[in-house]
Order: sequence, then C-alpha cells, then structure tokens
Amino acid sequence: VVRVVALGDDEAAIQEQLDAAYHDGDLVVITGGLGPTHDDVTKVAVAAYFGVALQFDAAVFEQVKARFAHRARAMPESNRSQAMVPEGFSVLPNPVGTAPGLWYAREAKGRTQVLVVLPGVPYEMQTLMRDEVMPRLRSHRDLRVIAHRTLLTTGIGESNLQERIGDLSGLLGRSLRLAYLPSTTGVRLRLTAYGDTRGAVAQQLDRLEVHLRERIDRYIFGTDGDTLEGVVGWMLREHGRTIALAESCTGGFVANRLTNVPGSSAYVLGGVVAYSNGVKIDVLDVSPAVLEEEGAVSERVARQMARGVRRYLKADIGVSTTGIAGPSGGSPDKPVGTVWIGYADAAGDQALLFRFAHDRVLNKELASTAVLELVRRQLLRRNVAPHEEHEAS
Amino acid sequence: VVRVVALGDDEAAIQEQLDAAYHDGDLVVITGGLGPTHDDVTKVAVAAYFGVALQFDAAVFEQVKARFAHRARAMPESNRSQAMVPEGFSVLPNPVGTAPGLWYAREAKGRTQVLVVLPGVPYEMQTLMRDEVMPRLRSHRDLRVIAHRTLLTTGIGESNLQERIGDLSGLLGRSLRLAYLPSTTGVRLRLTAYGDTRGAVAQQLDRLEVHLRERIDRYIFGTDGDTLEGVVGWMLREHGRTIALAESCTGGFVANRLTNVPGSSAYVLGGVVAYSNGVKIDVLDVSPAVLEEEGAVSERVARQMARGVRRYLKADIGVSTTGIAGPSGGSPDKPVGTVWIGYADAAGDQALLFRFAHDRVLNKELASTAVLELVRRQLLRRNVAPHEEHEAS
Repeated sequence: VVRVVALGDDEAAIQEQLDAAYHDGDLVVITGGLGPTHDDVTKVAVAAYFGVALQFDAAVFEQVKARFAHRARAMPESNRSQAMVPEGFSVLPNPVGTAPGLWYAREAKGRTQVLVVLPGVPYEMQTLMRDEVMPRLRSHRDLRVIAHRTLLTTGIGESNLQERIGDLSGLLGRSLRLAYLPSTTGVRLRLTAYGDTRGAVAQQLDRLEVHLRERIDRYIFGTDGDTLEGVVGWMLREHGRTIALAESCTGGFVANRLTNVPGSSAYVLGGVVAYSNGVKIDVLDVSPAVLEEEGAVSERVARQMARGVRRYLKADIGVSTTGIAGPSGGSPDKPVGTVWIGYADAAGDQALLFRFAHDRVLNKELASTAVLELVRRQLLRRNVAPHEEHEAS
Repeated sequence: VVRVVALGDDEAAIQEQLDAAYHDGDLVVITGGLGPTHDDVTKVAVAAYFGVALQFDAAVFEQVKARFAHRARAMPESNRSQAMVPEGFSVLPNPVGTAPGLWYAREAKGRTQVLVVLPGVPYEMQTLMRDEVMPRLRSHRDLRVIAHRTLLTTGIGESNLQERIGDLSGLLGRSLRLAYLPSTTGVRLRLTAYGDTRGAVAQQLDRLEVHLRERIDRYIFGTDGDTLEGVVGWMLREHGRTIALAESCTGGFVANRLTNVPGSSAYVLGGVVAYSNGVKIDVLDVSPAVLEEEGAVSERVARQMARGVRRYLKADIGVSTTGIAGPSGGSPDKPVGTVWIGYADAAGDQALLFRFAHDRVLNKELASTAVLELVRRQLLRRNVAPHEEHEAS
C-alpha cells in the first residue's frame, strides 16, 4: 500500500487524487460515495475523469429492488441511481447491500492499471473485497511477493519489548522489516518480507519469527488475525473447561469480548454484571462485612466475586473485575483506574491489582484485556481442574 | 479538512506529502512515528524537510524519565530519542504518554502556516489536540466560521430518511450542506454551514434543523456528541428509574454500552449474561417447558427473561435479548440474525422480533442498538412506574 487518502464528497478533489494514485500505483481502490443520496458523487466523478457516460443497468436495478423486497420494505425512488454504471466498467455484485462495486482495467504506460470502486459501508466493502476483488486480482496479476506475519503481544510496552528483542540490524534490511503497532490489547509486531518466490519470503519470515520467539515468546498470545478472546476461547475448548464472569467496573465488556467468538456458547456459561453492591451481595455472595470494611474495590471482594460466580453458574473458572473506571469515584488511596481482577478455579483463588490511567472506556478495555490475559496464563501454566459438585454448597 | 493521508514510515513519502499538504492547507497535522523504536522516522523526516537539526531537550527527557518512574518501571535507553526536538520547534507537553507533541509556525506566501506533530496513540493524540493544539489555534487564527451540527437518527435507513425529508434544494447550497453518514447505531445527519459570523452560521443551522425535525423528529435520538446509551441513561436518571439486563445473544454488549456512560452506576443495577439454558432457568426463572417447546429464541423466552431479571435485581425496567448471532445455529425457521428483544416494567411486558443479516459482531451491535432504542421509546411514551415490591414474589 503506497498511500491511503480520505477525501470529502467533492468531484474535483476525487479526480485530482485519482490522477495522483494512478501516477504511483497500478491498483487504485476507491470506497464510499455510491449511496442513493445527493452527497454521493463518486460515480459521477469517476465517469467524468474517464470521459464516459453513466448508463442505466437493468440487471443491477433488479438486484436493488430484490434486496428491498427481501426485507419487506418499499424502495425509495432515489435508489434508481444505484443502477447507473459508467460505460466500460464491470459490475461487482453486492450480496449484502444495494450499491454494487465496479471494476475497470485499462492498459497504460505498458502496464495494466486496475480501478476498483466499492461501497463505503465497512461490511459491504469487506464482503466485496474478499469475494470479488481479491479473486480477480489473483488471476490478473503477476506480482512480486510481499508477505506479512503479525505476532500479537500483550502485557508489555513497546520500548521494553524492543529492549528484550535487542539489536536486529543483522537480520532486518530492505527485504525484511519489523513494525511495532501499539493497541489497547497490546503491541502487535508486524513482520514484512519482500522477495521473488513465496518460499523465499516464508523462509525470511520464519527466521525472524524464531529469533523473536526466543526472546519474547511468553508475551506472544497469537498471530495475524487471532484475538486474545479467540485464543482464550480456543484454550478453554481444548481443555474442555467452562468460564463464568462477575463484572463490576468492566460492565459486561469481558463477556461481550468472549461472546464475540463464534461457538463461544460451548464454554461461556454466562456472567453477572454486578454494578450495585446489592447484586454483589445477593447474587455473588460477597460478604457485606468485607464490602463495608475494605470497600467494593478490594482484593477480598474481587476474590469473593470470582468464587461466587464460579459456584453460582457451576463453571470451572470464575473471573471478576472490580475497580474505579472513572471519571469520578477515585480517592487518594484508590485513584481512578484502580482495578482488582479476581480468578477462581478448583485449586483456589487469587487477585491482581492494576492501575490504569486513562479515560473510562479505555480503562474498561485495558481491564478486560488483563482479565483475558490472566485466564490465558492460568490455562498455559496448569491444567485447570473441572468444577466439583461438592464445592458448590 | 481538505484531505487525510495515511502513509508508511518512509522519510521520502512523508516529505512529499508534507509538501503537498502545505500547498493546499494552512494547518498541517502529522500523527504517529514519534515512538522510541527504529521504525519511528517522523521527526527525522520533518527536520530534514526544513533543513534543521534534531537537538536533545533536557526538560523533555526529565518528563519522559518521570513518566517511567511514576509507573515504577525502568526506562529503556531507546527513550532518549523521544527527547530529540527539531531546531525551532516548540514542545507540546504530553501528560499521558512519553512522546511530546511539536508545534512549528512559519510565514510563507504572506500567511502563517502551522505544522503540528502529534503521537499516534489515539488517546495521546486526542489529549494533546484538546489541551494544547486547539487553544493555540484559537489564539493564532482568524478563520472564516465553519460550524457543524449532527442529528443522530436510529431505526430508519438512509434512503427512507431522505424520502421523508423530501426536497431540500430550496434550503441547501454552497453555504449550507447536509451529509448522510450511516453507522451501526443509525444514520447521522451532519449539517454544515459556512459564513462570516457565528450568528449567521447558527441561524442557517437552526433553520435546517427545524425543517428536518418537522419531518423526522421521532427518529432523532440526540445531537452531536450524544450517544444512544448516554441519552437512555440521561432519561433513566431524569425519571429516577433503574434498569437490569438479561442478555443472551448480545453477551454483555448492552450492559457494556450502558456502563460506558460516566455515572451509570446510578441507574444500571446490573445484568445477567445468560448464555446457557441452565442460567436462563436457574437465574432468570425461564420456564423449562417453554424453552423446550418454543426454543430459547422465542417471544415467550424473551419476555420471561425481561420479567425475570427485573424481578431478580429489583429494577424498574428489565430488558432481554435472545437470538442467533451466527455464523452457525440458524434454521429455515429462525435464520442467523433472528433476535427477540424483551421489555418489562410494572405495567407489563412485550417483545419485538428483529432479523439482522450480518456477521456475528455486527448482529450483536445492531441488537444492542435495538434494545436501547426500545427503552428510549418506552421512556418517551409513558411514565414508567417504579418497581413494586409486591410483584417480586
């Protein structure tokens, strides 16, 4: 990718950037501005750039009509514009929306240049990219091999990671690169190799990955498209273990992340969002005396919540969060961002203290990542025993 | 905003785009590439562009060291690079990270051109933009007034919205614009006015807003920075009512959204993520016979879940979700995306059927939006009575 440019719905600006893109690249992808409303000017701008007319395409119009019919809705007349196609362009059918994609190939300066125009709604763009554009590109082009591999780390910062990895000048160069990409789940390490064959490129990536894993393997929870919740889910499934969540400060975010994984109903029994002390006491069996003496944000409450939800939902593992997400509610003793995370299984329970220093939503995200990482480390370290019925009293 | 460009960590490309940006704009903002790792080249590229040296700034170095000390971590030596500042640039202190921002103003072509360089980590960029950059810009510049106002709609699609709004050609023009911005919460309508004074611009926006509200007011849940969860939370607080959630297919996402709102502990009592039938029966008192006969994804189960969680957590309002998020688990009768949403208060209960047709995560998002919108409409329509103790039997 040479460049990504975001523009307003402005015909002249679209044409200017289309020109600049053709100058630097052989493939140009435009997204957005294909809708039925007056501010959608992409097709008009593109047709004018090539000096071709927009033509009504009856087949596309039938698909647009069918889509409204399927959802039992009347089609507003403005959707007729979605069936207009620039002359000479091929239509890429859109099974998940009303605006089709477009494909245009031309020979210029002795090479094939391809323009792809896609709707801007993310899942429509993704569907068309995966099902229509990538297969066509594979058959059209004989490209130099560029391959990426991403190692996903968590629980360690960017500069500490680089320090542990050490000097890579003997390995990296023009054909092998490493990028540090921080996110709220952790730092992603993106390895990129360039070469003439798939084999040569894979070998370069392997060599760098082995080198990195020798130094930082314990922080790597997955690769490429993995997610922390997906990896934890896969481990729970492999171990045949179930999990239950007692969430106070994360307010359901840990459950939400775990249940984003297809098939998670096999190991997520459920959870309790225990936002009030009443719920902590009545549902999770937290001791009112401990709540009174040590406060809701305390080690003992976190451990009791994890034990309580594990017992209550008869899960193998119970985890909990209790903290001060902010912006208010902090004290000198327990500033905003203070979070206790509890863990319980048949072997016992424990809690870890974290201190995040961000805004409410980010503190919730970071706490949920810490919970998932704690479960991952427990599952890595030891064989978690199943829930025993006699404990459930 | 003339243009947003995303680039790789490439000195030459950064310099080329910096040149193009200066050509089209008076303010250029660069984000990212200020970190301590070898791929962070922004400062080097910018210094070379202006032909100035990078100088070590002792005060910045002290701040970087203090930040590591505060978090009780050792500072890796590579962080020394974060204290290098291009000659002639001002430092914008970064209270939430180690890389400071930079500010550089110059006179060129008879105008003041400003370059701002900010760290790429989103909350660091946002903090510096809000606390350092915006106040400086306000004092530096005498700009033509551009004002935006956004009306947030939900429960209606883009083309149906446009049809209800009707012809706006008498209102819109070069100085007043309307953009349709679809998202998973609904379509945002962004009104933009240009003018010489704040008063004139506000008047234009008011006229367009009144015109729109006459036509689509019931679909508008808020404006500008409002969120649906924030608006629902504000209404619950105004009415002095509490809410409890019983989530199956949304897996905690509704609770997560509601608890993203600061102060939500005043009205969110908590929730139950009822992913297994066992939890639905044992905790939410769903009838095993109904589960058996009609399945977990059914109107009666949705209503029982809403009633059950309301009673269990002693809330004024109980809401529930039960559906098939996908990708598997669908049937001809109940395809993936089928979701029942339940609602219960002192006056009774009801359930609504939705059919979403997307992927798992998006189906969860759309279902959570539908829940929040249902609560909003109930609170709009009638005065929800408080939970009565005698019902809790």
